[in-house]
Order: sequence, then structure tokens, then C-alpha cells
Amino acid sequence: MEITKEDLLSCSVHLSEDERAVVLLDQTQLPNRTEYLTLDTVQEIYDAIKVLAVRGAPAIGICAGYAMYVLARKWCEEHDDAASLFETFSAAMEKDGDYLISSRPTAVNLAWAVNRMMKVIREEGPAMMGGDGPAADGQGAAASGADGDSCSASSGFHALVSRLHDEAVAIHKEDIEMCRRIAEYGLSLIKPGDGILTHCNAGALATSKYGTATGPMYLAKEKGIPIRVFSDETRPLLQGARLTSYELEKAGIDVTLICDNMASMVMKNGWVQAVFVGCDRIAANGDFANKIGTSGVAILAKHYGIPFYTLGPRSTIDMDCSTGDDIRIEQRDPDEIKNMWYAEPMALPEVKCFNPAFDVTDHELLTAIVTDKGIVYPPFEENLKKIMEED
Amino acid sequence: MEITKEDLLSCSVHLSEDERAVVLLDQTQLPNRTEYLTLDTVQEIYDAIKVLAVRGAPAIGICAGYAMYVLARKWCEEHDDAASLFETFSAAMEKDGDYLISSRPTAVNLAWAVNRMMKVIREEGPAMMGGDGPAADGQGAAASGADGDSCSASSGFHALVSRLHDEAVAIHKEDIEMCRRIAEYGLSLIKPGDGILTHCNAGALATSKYGTATGPMYLAKEKGIPIRVFSDETRPLLQGARLTSYELEKAGIDVTLICDNMASMVMKNGWVQAVFVGCDRIAANGDFANKIGTSGVAILAKHYGIPFYTLGPRSTIDMDCSTGDDIRIEQRDPDEIKNMWYAEPMALPEVKCFNPAFDVTDHELLTAIVTDKGIVYPPFEENLKKIMEED
Repeated sequence: MEITKEDLLSCSVHLSEDERAVVLLDQTQLPNRTEYLTLDTVQEIYDAIKVLAVRGAPAIGICAGYAMYVLARKWCEEHDDAASLFETFSAAMEKDGDYLISSRPTAVNLAWAVNRMMKVIREEGPAMMGGDGPAADGQGAAASGADGDSCSASSGFHALVSRLHDEAVAIHKEDIEMCRRIAEYGLSLIKPGDGILTHCNAGALATSKYGTATGPMYLAKEKGIPIRVFSDETRPLLQGARLTSYELEKAGIDVTLICDNMASMVMKNGWVQAVFVGCDRIAANGDFANKIGTSGVAILAKHYGIPFYTLGPRSTIDMDCSTGDDIRIEQRDPDEIKNMWYAEPMALPEVKCFNPAFDVTDHELLTAIVTDKGIVYPPFEENLKKIMEED
Repeated sequence: MEITKEDLLSCSVHLSEDERAVVLLDQTQLPNRTEYLTLDTVQEIYDAIKVLAVRGAPAIGICAGYAMYVLARKWCEEHDDAASLFETFSAAMEKDGDYLISSRPTAVNLAWAVNRMMKVIREEGPAMMGGDGPAADGQGAAASGADGDSCSASSGFHALVSRLHDEAVAIHKEDIEMCRRIAEYGLSLIKPGDGILTHCNAGALATSKYGTATGPMYLAKEKGIPIRVFSDETRPLLQGARLTSYELEKAGIDVTLICDNMASMVMKNGWVQAVFVGCDRIAANGDFANKIGTSGVAILAKHYGIPFYTLGPRSTIDMDCSTGDDIRIEQRDPDEIKNMWYAEPMALPEVKCFNPAFDVTDHELLTAIVTDKGIVYPPFEENLKKIMEED
């Protein structure tokens, strides 16, 4: 699969043309305004992740990869004596990385991408610092960009930053390839005319192209296979209304928006043949965290005898997490329920709220996990292990 | 149980002081503004029911009773020769009644109250018209009000209007008594410290005092029994956020507001020992229609092994409706999902929506039906029949 620079730039998260900033389509402004944020400080990027300007596990991972590159390049340019300061640089990057990770503790791809970038710094940095020129694969922006000369750090540093550029781009390209493979596996699970219900947004806006849960829908469209989609609006942040129904409608896919509490009726009416949802973290036993409400949809699907699938890349599987009980669930501001979207408050200010961002769906409710390396069926503990050991 | 005029006037639906209009607390304005509507035309009352300014099956019934009285009185005052026009009067009232019924086709209490008032007209009217003075129980407002003399119709008509007044007040008083009895039966199903989850608003705002599903909560509060309540916000019209959490908070009851899709997690956390919901119509086999989302909550409760109860007066039971399949579900405007509450649109204008107002919960998901005449357990077909045959 050939992935061009245009493919990368068309995604909701990408590197700016001058490669000095991360560019994000601000998802908090959809569906009414298409605005891009151009961010080059750790605080800006932390905030963007926190307020969900960028959201969806893969998109956050791509964002984190580019962020680490942009911050490393900036640090290098601001420190003339960088060559003598590798330890300081590495510590600064680690601090920034940890801070970024703390913006969404549930999103395993965030930590995964930051750690992947840090691994390049830790494992390849010292050797490069000791070298006498750019590394062999140093074809990245810092080495080739118009502003490259303004970076007066040593050539070793120059090479390391270039290496980080390539690593971030690799994360992005791999995501596009993964989504395409997930889409193909997912499409094999449905037939023409099927209705698919999805929750939240695990679409192109959340990833790069195709999305995860929406991948089979885009691929069906490409191949002319008729399907129809029911999109839960997904309270409190309404990603289904604002994002999923937006992107599917724009793509010409037959989509019907429903409130979360209507899923039972839609299923009872016989309109849903499969549920496709994304995942933020999959435990070793198949339990998985995803947007709040996912476990309820899974219970409904089981009740009505409808297969329920979660779709995500292998990077979402966390073998260090043995069950869903080990997944920490982020609690968010009650104002998201009471005030956030409304012209005026929708509940008394003094009313208590419980506002978890995610819930954990028990693996017993899950028909299969669709990954970029194939479809994993129960027993999950055994079969997830196998797929994680594959190349 | 002694019910005073003050009790009646304190309810969210009541007759105006001059008894010429129906007064409604406008529930579309809550929780931010407490505004009353004073309505005396069939169109105003139809609209108020339609836009849910008055909502909740019992409150709609009370409203319909008072409406029929107010409209009858007005008709009588506007027709000097009313005495010669009983058939015309009866036909006009029937037309108004049918129109009111059409405002919320799912609400059985609406038709029930209209028909109860029409029955008085049809069965008692002809005899009164033929009589030579007010009926013996003609102590109502039209007979005693300051403006009584302006009604120049015959004393027979006068007596009939007075009889309709008493019938409407009786509907209201019976509702207060019924809610109290439902509350007592419901309270017997929970123990101190229990968590109760409820959906939509079957509270004092929806009825008169106590409410139906909230009855046990108010009664627990009265008796000093500690409980805590989880209130589903209930999309799209947010009755749980705007009304239930409002009225329980104001009453000093421990209430936590959640989005509908959080119920699964709250149950999984072990915080819910019983689900109490209202009902708009109960079929002979125990299937029942209630606010959209109820069937989903029932499926979740079954999954987590939590008892699930619907609470309502016997007037909600429709023995002519054999199963839930016979219940017609009202479809409402997509704008309720996409635009209604928001500062700006929350989905693309061209996105399709499915927006049913109610759903049907299968009787197999139901632990028991709590009525004013006792708790009905399965087999529902047999036991509902028994309770309907009781005095």
C-alpha cells in the first residue's frame, strides 16, 4: 500500500508543512465549523488532548508521535550546546512525554506512541551523539528543511531529530495501513444490506483513513456493498452526533442518528445485524475499555442475539493488564452533563453527577476482536496471546 | 386520607382559583424558570400536552379532566340556549375530547380521563336536561362561583357542569391517593441504604404528590429511611436532568444524575439494588410502554441481576391491549435530537434521525408491577386480570 505525503496531510492529525508544529482538526468545533489548530508547545498539545480537540486512540497516538518530534526539534534549536547535553535533552523529553501521557490516562496509544519515541531517544541517541555525522537514514525534515541550518546543534543531534521525524511519520503510516487491514477483516463479518450499530466515534476523524469501527463501512462504500449504519449520539460529548454521523454522511454512507437509549428499540426492530465499536484498551483476557456506554450496548446486543465486535490495532491490546479491573477509568467534569452543550443549564447547579469517560465491557459479551492481524475469537486469553506473539 | 384544596393547588396541574382555566407548571422551562400556564381553550391545552409542558401519564389525565370541565363550562356560558342543545353540546365536547386525545396517542390516561368525563356527559346529561333543577350533588364551582349567574343556561346544564367539576376534582384526588398507595407498596420492596435507579420522570411533577416511580423515594424521605437515587438524564428531552433530579434535589433526597449510557456502569459498580420506572401503558400480558430507553434499562437490570419494577395506577393497565405489539409508538421530531437544547446544531442538518418517544419493555424483563392495589408478580396475564377485577 503506497502512502503519499498527500495522504498524510489529508488526515485529521498531521505535521505542518514546515514540520515545526502538529496540526489538528479541532473536533470540538464539529459539525458546525472546520477549524485547524497548529500547536508547537507541550502545554498546547496537552490541552488539545485533554479537551478532546484530538480524540480517538490512534489519532492521539499519531499526535503524540508528531508532538515528541516537534518538541525535540524545538529543544534542539533552542540549545546551541545540545551536543553536550544529551542527558538534559533526554530528561526534558521524558518530562514532556510523561506530561502528555497524563492528559488522557485511559488511552494506551498515547503512552505507546510517547514510549516509542522515547525508545528511539534512549536507544539510538547515545550512539548518534558519539558519532561524527548524521545517521544513515537521516532524511527527515530537520536534516532537509529550509530552516535546518538554524539548528546549530551537532550533527549527531541533527540526526537524532531527523530519526524522530521518521519514527513519527512511521507511526502515522502504520496506522493508515492497520486501519485498512482492520476494515478488510471487519467487512468479512457482514453481508450486503446489513445494519451496523456503532457507538462514539472510531472513525476517520479518530484515526487517519478508514477509522477502526467505521473501516468496514468505508470499505463497503468503496466496494459498492449496501449497508446502513445507526450511530449512537454518545452522551455526554456527543461524538456520535457531531463526528460519526458527520463523517459518514459526508462520505455518502446511509447513517441514522439515534440517542443512546434508543439502541434497544433499533435492535428489537431487527435493524441491526452487527455492532462495531472501537476500543481504548484491551486487557489480556479480552475485557476492554471504550467510550462510556459501550458495555450497555454489548449487553443489549447479547440480549437480542446480535454479534458484537470491537475493532482496533494490536497496539490497543495491553498484555500487562490482565483484566478490565486493572483499567483505570477517567472521571470527568459534571458540567459536561449539566451545562456544556446547552443554551442554558439543564440541571440544577447543586445536582451531583457521575461522569465516567469510559466503561469496561466484559469479554463474555464480546463476539470477537477485529485487529490488523486478524479476527480474534474466544478464548481470548489464549488467542490474544497468540496474536501478540505474531510478527 | 384527607385531601385539602391546598393539596390540590400545590400540584403541578390544578384548576385556577376562579375555576375557569387549567393551570400547569410549564415543565419545558425547568429547571431554570418556574412558570405557570393558565389555559382555557382546547387548542392551548392540546399544544401544552403536545410540547410536554404537562407530561407524565397521571398529570396528563388530571389535566384532561380539568380541561373537559373548563371547556364544558365555557361552552355553556357561550350558549344561552344551551338547554335546547344537549346533543350539540355533547358533540362539541366529544370533538374537543378526541382532539385532546390525539395530542399524545401513547398516553392511556389521557383517553381514560377524557372518556370518564364524556361518560358523565353521556350517561348523566340527558337525565339532568330533563330534570327541573340542579342535581343533588351540584355543589361545584359553576353552581357556586361568583360568575355562576352569567351562565344563563338551564339549571340542568348548570348541574351537569357542576357534576363535571366534581368528576375532574375526583380524578385529581384519586390520583393523590393512588400515588400514596403505590409509594407504600414500592417502599416495601427496598431496604435502608439501597440505591434506586430511575429513568425519565415519573415524579411529583408527572402526577400530583409523591409521583409513581418516585413515590417510594419521597416516602422513604418522610420516614427517615436512607436511600440514594440515580437519575438517568433521559435523552432527548432530558426529563431526568431537568425534572427528576430537580424535584428530588429540592426535596432533599440524595440524587446523582447520569447520562443514560452510564446506567450499565453504575449497576456493575453495585450501586443499584432496584430499578423503579413509571409506565405509560401496560398491556394485558405485562409488556409495557414507557419513555424511550426503558427497555434498555430493563435488559441491563436483568443482566446484572437487579430487580426491575414499573409503578403505576391501575388506570395504566389496558386489558384491551393484549401485548406490547399492539401499542402504537409515537415518533417525534428529529430536531429534538439534533437541535432542540443546544446553543448550536449538534449534527449536520441532513443527518437522518430515528426518534421514538417510547419503547416497549418485554414482560419477561419485569420483576413486578407496583399498582395502587398491590404488587403484581408473574404470571402477569393471570395476575393482571385478577387485580383488574378487584374493586
